[in-house]
Amino acid sequence: MANKREGKIRAGIVGATGYAGAEIARLLAMHPDVEIAWLGSRSYAGKAFGSLFGNLYQIVDLDCIDDDTERLKATIAQLAEETRTDVIFTATPQGACMQLVSEELLSRTKVIDMSADFRLKNVDIYQKWYKIEHTAQQFLDEAVYGLCELAADRVKDARLLANPGCYTTCSILTAYPLVKEGMIDPNTLIVDALSGVSGAGRGAKVANLYCEVNESAKAYGVASHRHTPEIEEQLGYACGSDITITFTPHLVPMNRGILVTAYAELFSKADGTLPTEEEILAVYRKYYGDKHFIRVLPAGSCPDTRCVEGSNYVDICAKPDYRTGRVIMMGALDNLMKGAASQAVQNMNIMFGLPEDAGIGFIPANP
Amino acid sequence: MANKREGKIRAGIVGATGYAGAEIARLLAMHPDVEIAWLGSRSYAGKAFGSLFGNLYQIVDLDCIDDDTERLKATIAQLAEETRTDVIFTATPQGACMQLVSEELLSRTKVIDMSADFRLKNVDIYQKWYKIEHTAQQFLDEAVYGLCELAADRVKDARLLANPGCYTTCSILTAYPLVKEGMIDPNTLIVDALSGVSGAGRGAKVANLYCEVNESAKAYGVASHRHTPEIEEQLGYACGSDITITFTPHLVPMNRGILVTAYAELFSKADGTLPTEEEILAVYRKYYGDKHFIRVLPAGSCPDTRCVEGSNYVDICAKPDYRTGRVIMMGALDNLMKGAASQAVQNMNIMFGLPEDAGIGFIPANP
Amino acid sequence: MANKREGKIRAGIVGATGYAGAEIARLLAMHPDVEIAWLGSRSYAGKAFGSLFGNLYQIVDLDCIDDDTERLKATIAQLAEETRTDVIFTATPQGACMQLVSEELLSRTKVIDMSADFRLKNVDIYQKWYKIEHTAQQFLDEAVYGLCELAADRVKDARLLANPGCYTTCSILTAYPLVKEGMIDPNTLIVDALSGVSGAGRGAKVANLYCEVNESAKAYGVASHRHTPEIEEQLGYACGSDITITFTPHLVPMNRGILVTAYAELFSKADGTLPTEEEILAVYRKYYGDKHFIRVLPAGSCPDTRCVEGSNYVDICAKPDYRTGRVIMMGALDNLMKGAASQAVQNMNIMFGLPEDAGIGFIPANP
Amino acid sequence: MANKREGKIRAGIVGATGYAGAEIARLLAMHPDVEIAWLGSRSYAGKAFGSLFGNLYQIVDLDCIDDDTERLKATIAQLAEETRTDVIFTATPQGACMQLVSEELLSRTKVIDMSADFRLKNVDIYQKWYKIEHTAQQFLDEAVYGLCELAADRVKDARLLANPGCYTTCSILTAYPLVKEGMIDPNTLIVDALSGVSGAGRGAKVANLYCEVNESAKAYGVASHRHTPEIEEQLGYACGSDITITFTPHLVPMNRGILVTAYAELFSKADGTLPTEEEILAVYRKYYGDKHFIRVLPAGSCPDTRCVEGSNYVDICAKPDYRTGRVIMMGALDNLMKGAASQAVQNMNIMFGLPEDAGIGFIPANP
Repeated sequence: MANKREGKIRAGIVGATGYAGAEIARLLAMHPDVEIAWLGSRSYAGKAFGSLFGNLYQIVDLDCIDDDTERLKATIAQLAEETRTDVIFTATPQGACMQLVSEELLSRTKVIDMSADFRLKNVDIYQKWYKIEHTAQQFLDEAVYGLCELAADRVKDARLLANPGCYTTCSILTAYPLVKEGMIDPNTLIVDALSGVSGAGRGAKVANLYCEVNESAKAYGVASHRHTPEIEEQLGYACGSDITITFTPHLVPMNRGILVTAYAELFSKADGTLPTEEEILAVYRKYYGDKHFIRVLPAGSCPDTRCVEGSNYVDICAKPDYRTGRVIMMGALDNLMKGAASQAVQNMNIMFGLPEDAGIGFIPANP
Repeated sequence: MANKREGKIRAGIVGATGYAGAEIARLLAMHPDVEIAWLGSRSYAGKAFGSLFGNLYQIVDLDCIDDDTERLKATIAQLAEETRTDVIFTATPQGACMQLVSEELLSRTKVIDMSADFRLKNVDIYQKWYKIEHTAQQFLDEAVYGLCELAADRVKDARLLANPGCYTTCSILTAYPLVKEGMIDPNTLIVDALSGVSGAGRGAKVANLYCEVNESAKAYGVASHRHTPEIEEQLGYACGSDITITFTPHLVPMNRGILVTAYAELFSKADGTLPTEEEILAVYRKYYGDKHFIRVLPAGSCPDTRCVEGSNYVDICAKPDYRTGRVIMMGALDNLMKGAASQAVQNMNIMFGLPEDAGIGFIPANP
Repeated sequence: MANKREGKIRAGIVGATGYAGAEIARLLAMHPDVEIAWLGSRSYAGKAFGSLFGNLYQIVDLDCIDDDTERLKATIAQLAEETRTDVIFTATPQGACMQLVSEELLSRTKVIDMSADFRLKNVDIYQKWYKIEHTAQQFLDEAVYGLCELAADRVKDARLLANPGCYTTCSILTAYPLVKEGMIDPNTLIVDALSGVSGAGRGAKVANLYCEVNESAKAYGVASHRHTPEIEEQLGYACGSDITITFTPHLVPMNRGILVTAYAELFSKADGTLPTEEEILAVYRKYYGDKHFIRVLPAGSCPDTRCVEGSNYVDICAKPDYRTGRVIMMGALDNLMKGAASQAVQNMNIMFGLPEDAGIGFIPANP
Repeated sequence: MANKREGKIRAGIVGATGYAGAEIARLLAMHPDVEIAWLGSRSYAGKAFGSLFGNLYQIVDLDCIDDDTERLKATIAQLAEETRTDVIFTATPQGACMQLVSEELLSRTKVIDMSADFRLKNVDIYQKWYKIEHTAQQFLDEAVYGLCELAADRVKDARLLANPGCYTTCSILTAYPLVKEGMIDPNTLIVDALSGVSGAGRGAKVANLYCEVNESAKAYGVASHRHTPEIEEQLGYACGSDITITFTPHLVPMNRGILVTAYAELFSKADGTLPTEEEILAVYRKYYGDKHFIRVLPAGSCPDTRCVEGSNYVDICAKPDYRTGRVIMMGALDNLMKGAASQAVQNMNIMFGLPEDAGIGFIPANP
């Protein structure tokens, strides 16, 4: 195992009392090669973690340490040293991780950031979409975008890992093979996505109350959601040019799950015909056939979020529509798992030389 | 009041024990100008309607009559006569209403068909998408497509009314003004739609069990759903040419609601610029500003199914995406109400000279 | 119509932006004999009501006035006069209405209080359970406990009406006939109740977030819920003695609904036998057979919250268990309707001499 | 490891395509010491298991064998031999397992029965409540009632294990310590229980459709549910006498979970006082303090089904109500896990000498 102190990997979590942070804690508590060094929270500093999350009562036996960003940025390297922390997960809003990272910290500890701070290589785009000045641009080049299945080689040696967003992971994986192979016009790409409510976070807002969300479906962030440039940048790498897409997220009444339905115009083949359904699925199998956590479904299938719930799996399929010359690409994942926590652990596994599926090989539950 | 016997309008329902049929029964039971003459059901013939639908216990006090199509087609005109039925709602699967209608029946009774039998004027398209031979083609010309807000004039005099589908009503109303005004390229139209589970009907199928649908989101009928040609035909009339669109329905875990998110390329104006958000919404207000049941939401809004639940309202908004040159159009309605039962009653109201909102003026409940 | 100014009844709502207040607004907006004079809100003062509640957009066209209790208590009588308000609904937390009522106010305007301030006649019990000093004890005698079906005579002439709680309405109506007739031992009464989440209010609390409640069931307020003494007081009147009961509320994942399952020991009849199921149901029919909004279900039925959703109906049934000598009594209602808003309107109807069901005769929707 | 062939434990499942059967298959597919030998289904014989349960696609790679009871009863011993099956789970309705077991079968293979066939020692009670003649009474004495935490010693050597029901497991564990210690009067016990919908099974019935259950809560099987005598028998052993209780199950809209709220009269202590809350909880800790999968919550807590979802844990707490002299006992578990599949695997682990938590140590997910 690479780059760690002796014994088990020791992990700290900044922002452990949000849904993503708590899910990382839950996964690490079951991980055979990890022990949790500390759990940070500003709102619940000093509180027993198991009293906040009843599922972890008597299982995770730690009190939250205060992780206020202002305070922590001066002390995190020391904290890491004293607690012999091998890896820190920052499950924080945008703008926090950039304040915490430093050469001193990264020389001692790996950082896996769940926020967008190091996802976009283009700092102008980051500042435009997130309305935040980027104060740690010196690490942008080094940071590795951790969509594991597409970047395992780079993840392996990362010190600073930008864990992809939930919508982004699902959107990119769903469209990637056809973009990469030049089978679709990437500038015609429209990504229509549905999210479970845990994606909206654990903040106390009226809009996220049970009765405001239950029995309800609506779009939000239309033509302006921040995951848009992340999808554009990554798929742009795949096709070798800048692209512009439409991305529309929706909130639907379920706890977990991202469902992507993506549309694009198929390019004709050299003979002037459109690719067959089998040719399209063959491309998916070419890229994902050997990926443990990506399942290319049989022709005619439609991925269902419940079939990946609680797991690190991504289910994908696609169907051509010859009446319109388009292809409909579909993907499903669990937003708190492959869309956040279990992908972070998957990245951690790769970064520390563990088997990719260590501690995250759960089979989805049904129902 | 036109075309009826004396006293209240007397209504019969074929297929009253499906969700749409039972919803019509519920609405008619509250309608000040209607009395229910009979309720038909094949599966529950002879059973007390109020024992099947607990919400109607002690309110609708009728036993179901047997409405087996084979039997009924020989007797329905006589039934209508004997029961002095002014209007019959056929809340049946495709293929039933075409067997029941006849000149004899229509000369005595108005028919409002909830199925697709008389929605498509082009019989070839009907037969291709529904795989059923159309046996009552002689009534196709006469049948009026009852999207009330766009066809009130024709509805007024209809004897045979084809009540639009739930997806269709929402899709057409959402896109109509921009198609009609030539502001979008209709052949770039992609309709991505979500439906509550009542849209799948009341049949006992494993796929519709609570545990198979709850905490789940998935597409279905991709590139093949039967509401596609209905949308194409009606929007084709609006723009004066045949069009081809992509339509993708999804099932999401809620009882009621259709949410449409539709995408199309905006045409530039004469000056080469794209229309502003305000210009786009002004077109919606031009067509719908005087429609009681259509609410054009303020700029920046996203329709939410729960805000129309239990009502005949349709909420609509649109937003241009200048990065891509597209517009995102959004609409929401209650699939059992404006998408089925209350639109049928709205049509009945118009057909009998009643105020359009008689008996269906419910304000949506929240939550 | 009694006790009102000319024209329609003019109503004001204090606390109109909670779930109960907004539901009253929705009902009044559909009520043929009422117009809304003003809607109060502290948090949303100055905001358009229709922008806060999308269901009421373009339907309720009023801005919220500031109803901060401190400010309002000095001005409410003047406000009532200036706005010619005939009735004020106080949909506020405990402690607000007692500050607002005064002889001056009640001489001009009727007050229907949705809180507990005037529900308990025994002020010591109020102060013990609610931990609030009661500052308007002079109105306790006058205030009428508005469980309409049991108190229509007193409601008729009320100036100050205490609208019962949701759990309470369901619990009392479910047990009342057997307590009143002396068929059960009231001190063995155990009320186990389930509530939909709207009962927890519209406050922004983590505990009421969608993801904290969905896929979850739990008890709360065990042996300490404040609706307990209200049930005890009212059922105590029924049997003519002080009683003590056990009441356990639970939160279950649905928007609306109260379901009560109550247990008590049956008294033997004079001949030493226990009453038959039919004898038990006959008692229910004796008390409720002529009540428009209470449905005694057939023997063997179990009330279901969805069968009363959106309505003012209460469904009730009971079943003896001869193995244990107990009876299981069951009742269901919609907590925002019969448990709050529509019962308040029902009381208003009675207070103003309108038909009891005016504006609230909705048939429950299903599904 | 005791009593098995070489290598991993080989398991077969009769009735693998119900919810409990499929959940056992999922657990076994993750179990480090087990391999699935065969999966039986009558309805889906010949179908790929992974095509029926999308969550298991590409994970469980077996076709269902036909397990029609009539056919299987003649061949199951041979099947076990040929497939070297060490343990058979019968996830079937009542009446099937009794036809399959035989001395020949049990001499080769252990049987874990998920049905009620061998749960009740008193065959008269079985036949009365289940209306089935018991055809394998010779195994009733030998069969071990597998409530692991209370019977690990007997489970260890069992050949035929009766896996307890979901309601039963939760009810018994919740009340057992106070019954066993004589702190409550067991004949005053009232068990009020809520169940998620997966408890109703995977059969295609209208009553279990999404729209029939969602936004709904109701009791069922009042005074007649078949789990009643199972609770009575087991708690009767605990107190050493026959007891009679009231048990009322309810269906609430969530996939998984059993919540028990149980009521009983506290006995006074020798000094005439009632036991303190701390004394009550101490009794729970005495019995469960060393049980891995039972968590006694802190005083004042209310178990929540979501805090045990997806796990084998049971959360328990209790609160005295001194006003009434009763105690309210509360317990929560996942009906498909501790209430069915994971308890079955826990029993298997004990029967084969494995650590009790092997393959079932999942931490509950939240949300």
